[in-house]
Amino acid sequence: MSDNHTPVAGNGLLDRRFFLKAGVASSTLLLSAQTFSADRPVWMRGPGAPMSESGAPSEHEAHLQRTAIGSQTGTTGAGASRTPLELLDGIITPSRLHFERHHSGIPAIDPDEHRLVIHGLVDRPLSFSLDALSRYQTVSRIQFLECSGNSGTLIAPEPTQKSCSQIHGLVSASEWGGVPLSVLLQETGIKPQGKWIVAAGADAAMMSRSVPMDKVLDDAIVALYQNGERLRPSNGYPMRLFLPGWEGNMSVKWLRTIKVVDQPSMTRDETSKYSDLQDDGVSRLFTFPMGVKSVITSPSPDLQMGEPGIYQISGIAWTGAGKIRRVEVSADGGKSWADAALDEHVMSKCLTRFRSAWRWDGASAVILSRATDEAGNIQPTRDAVLEGRSKRGFYHYNGIQAWQVNANGEVNNVYA
Amino acid sequence: MSDNHTPVAGNGLLDRRFFLKAGVASSTLLLSAQTFSADRPVWMRGPGAPMSESGAPSEHEAHLQRTAIGSQTGTTGAGASRTPLELLDGIITPSRLHFERHHSGIPAIDPDEHRLVIHGLVDRPLSFSLDALSRYQTVSRIQFLECSGNSGTLIAPEPTQKSCSQIHGLVSASEWGGVPLSVLLQETGIKPQGKWIVAAGADAAMMSRSVPMDKVLDDAIVALYQNGERLRPSNGYPMRLFLPGWEGNMSVKWLRTIKVVDQPSMTRDETSKYSDLQDDGVSRLFTFPMGVKSVITSPSPDLQMGEPGIYQISGIAWTGAGKIRRVEVSADGGKSWADAALDEHVMSKCLTRFRSAWRWDGASAVILSRATDEAGNIQPTRDAVLEGRSKRGFYHYNGIQAWQVNANGEVNNVYA
Repeated sequence: MSDNHTPVAGNGLLDRRFFLKAGVASSTLLLSAQTFSADRPVWMRGPGAPMSESGAPSEHEAHLQRTAIGSQTGTTGAGASRTPLELLDGIITPSRLHFERHHSGIPAIDPDEHRLVIHGLVDRPLSFSLDALSRYQTVSRIQFLECSGNSGTLIAPEPTQKSCSQIHGLVSASEWGGVPLSVLLQETGIKPQGKWIVAAGADAAMMSRSVPMDKVLDDAIVALYQNGERLRPSNGYPMRLFLPGWEGNMSVKWLRTIKVVDQPSMTRDETSKYSDLQDDGVSRLFTFPMGVKSVITSPSPDLQMGEPGIYQISGIAWTGAGKIRRVEVSADGGKSWADAALDEHVMSKCLTRFRSAWRWDGASAVILSRATDEAGNIQPTRDAVLEGRSKRGFYHYNGIQAWQVNANGEVNNVYA
Repeated sequence: MSDNHTPVAGNGLLDRRFFLKAGVASSTLLLSAQTFSADRPVWMRGPGAPMSESGAPSEHEAHLQRTAIGSQTGTTGAGASRTPLELLDGIITPSRLHFERHHSGIPAIDPDEHRLVIHGLVDRPLSFSLDALSRYQTVSRIQFLECSGNSGTLIAPEPTQKSCSQIHGLVSASEWGGVPLSVLLQETGIKPQGKWIVAAGADAAMMSRSVPMDKVLDDAIVALYQNGERLRPSNGYPMRLFLPGWEGNMSVKWLRTIKVVDQPSMTRDETSKYSDLQDDGVSRLFTFPMGVKSVITSPSPDLQMGEPGIYQISGIAWTGAGKIRRVEVSADGGKSWADAALDEHVMSKCLTRFRSAWRWDGASAVILSRATDEAGNIQPTRDAVLEGRSKRGFYHYNGIQAWQVNANGEVNNVYA
């Protein structure tokens, strides 16, 4: 029955249509027909657990946690934790597993005391309580958020041997709901000289970033909800700025002040870091949108392959430029490529899930994915990303990721 | 500045475009300009909490729980809990708050021991481990699930005074990911006489429902993932049937067997209940799709209104027939209606979030919402729903919900 598995690219990549027609019955993991036992398993022999206020994950899934939790030396609250990408499917990131990147920990904000103040080059400076914001007409959209430092470890001369989440886990996707910032700025009015805003957080580091007014009036929101419920403290409770498709640190958490200004403020957080150092010593500033990118989450390091046979290659793709148009997959180190299937929901500035069928013959193989977005941007090679960069410039790394599947079923990070 | 708030329907309903232009600056909840205090709140005066494996909700949101948790008399595990709709926004339901309806509690299944057996009128009966299923090409879609008993309390002659979630909270939406059942049935083959399946769960009640083959081959999946992670035990861990748009109990949790049969099996769960008793004593069977429906979640009972002024009317709409095309809102008891704004994501067989702007003048008012789907179905009145029904027939209630806002800001359930 596997005879109509016609390869569409080298080393066993199968057309997704043929995959759906033919299935994986040749896989040794499928048991053949068996007598259906009359013995019911022990969990069917009496009533199970009752209803509850809150449904917890299975105890068998306790390993599903954020990874690579690291504080910078000498701090308690400056560091990051990462989304366990290789254990998830689909596009929504459970809120408890959304990545973190804090500059001075998570402030314990009393929502009744917190205010958002909009001031500067406005006609009427205003202070908004959470209650006041809740009276406005809100919007919600499902979109990704990525730290500009995500995947930065791949600038190292030798490929680091870490898991997919440890390398790429500073990206997540949620439904973000809140008030368009343009609405609030209509309330305050904007003086003609007002061309930028500076947004600052209520953390001890007072994380501050300058945002051009065009973006603010386009699709910026003051987010109050994440995946249907109020933001979690590690994602900005009770409110954060959210700038779809732009580098994560600009979506200032625990948003406290927005000052309308005539030019960028050159804050510490946009000069001492989150700038792109080039080979010639010049730093590029204000490189806001995240590039087109993809990564295969399965197979990937730490996910041990079983016996040779048909596997699903699955991963995520995203771009700050809008929608993903295409994802190609290679199983022969980039010599040949085939289009992956995209899940039904392909949304703007959101993760898109892609899938390919692969018959692994048990030999060593290098698998890659390459995304193209609706603006025509194609995910670059590692060499192209590093061209002209300082050896210390690790932000905005969006090169093609190669995983090597070894004959023993282990998966390693390689530069291909 | 509120002069351009031109009403679009009676009793203060405002056009959503005017709302976005004019804002709510007239609301007394907005503070006027204030000196921006140099004193930072206490939570900014030192580093906050460090990163963690799992981000919990704020302690200020501890009230966000499932509601109306009830077991049927004499049982521990037969009953329901409901999604707190009036405290959520957007369309995604956090997995821990997805409604529950169990017939014999939540079985404690060992995923390594669990098998899905497909047998009956097939060429090759097969047994699938979780690992085997994970090799198949999967799909994921964001869709609603509604218990057919949802809102059934509204058949009572007098309107029950409960919260929105207590009345309507047996509906939720998630990203559901899994293997199309059609793929698995291609593996087993289907004999020509195979026109239905009977799906049964691994709970002690062995919940069993018959499903016609057309639906099975159209969009049924064996769901393994919910909102990116493995299903939670209260939603069928490690696998459940998911039938988009059809009454919830058919999406059999803890799916254990699928038997291909030539006609429906008339199981206990589709004859003794989940059938629609009519006035003439006849029970309608197999009323699978959920009707077009909407409910205003805010304002709603238990959400106390503040002072008169502009409020957002917000709610959810859904239909088993595909996409929501339109939601209308009335603030004068149904005498006049205006189109609500729909959030950006309007997806098939999914919740759709709608919003209207309303200037509440402080007097008693009755607010309603009415949904229309892409098939042209219009949400019926309560009278139309009850026409011809037995007084005990509470399934598939999708009548228009009216809330009365009283002069003191309280909101009550009324029949309008």
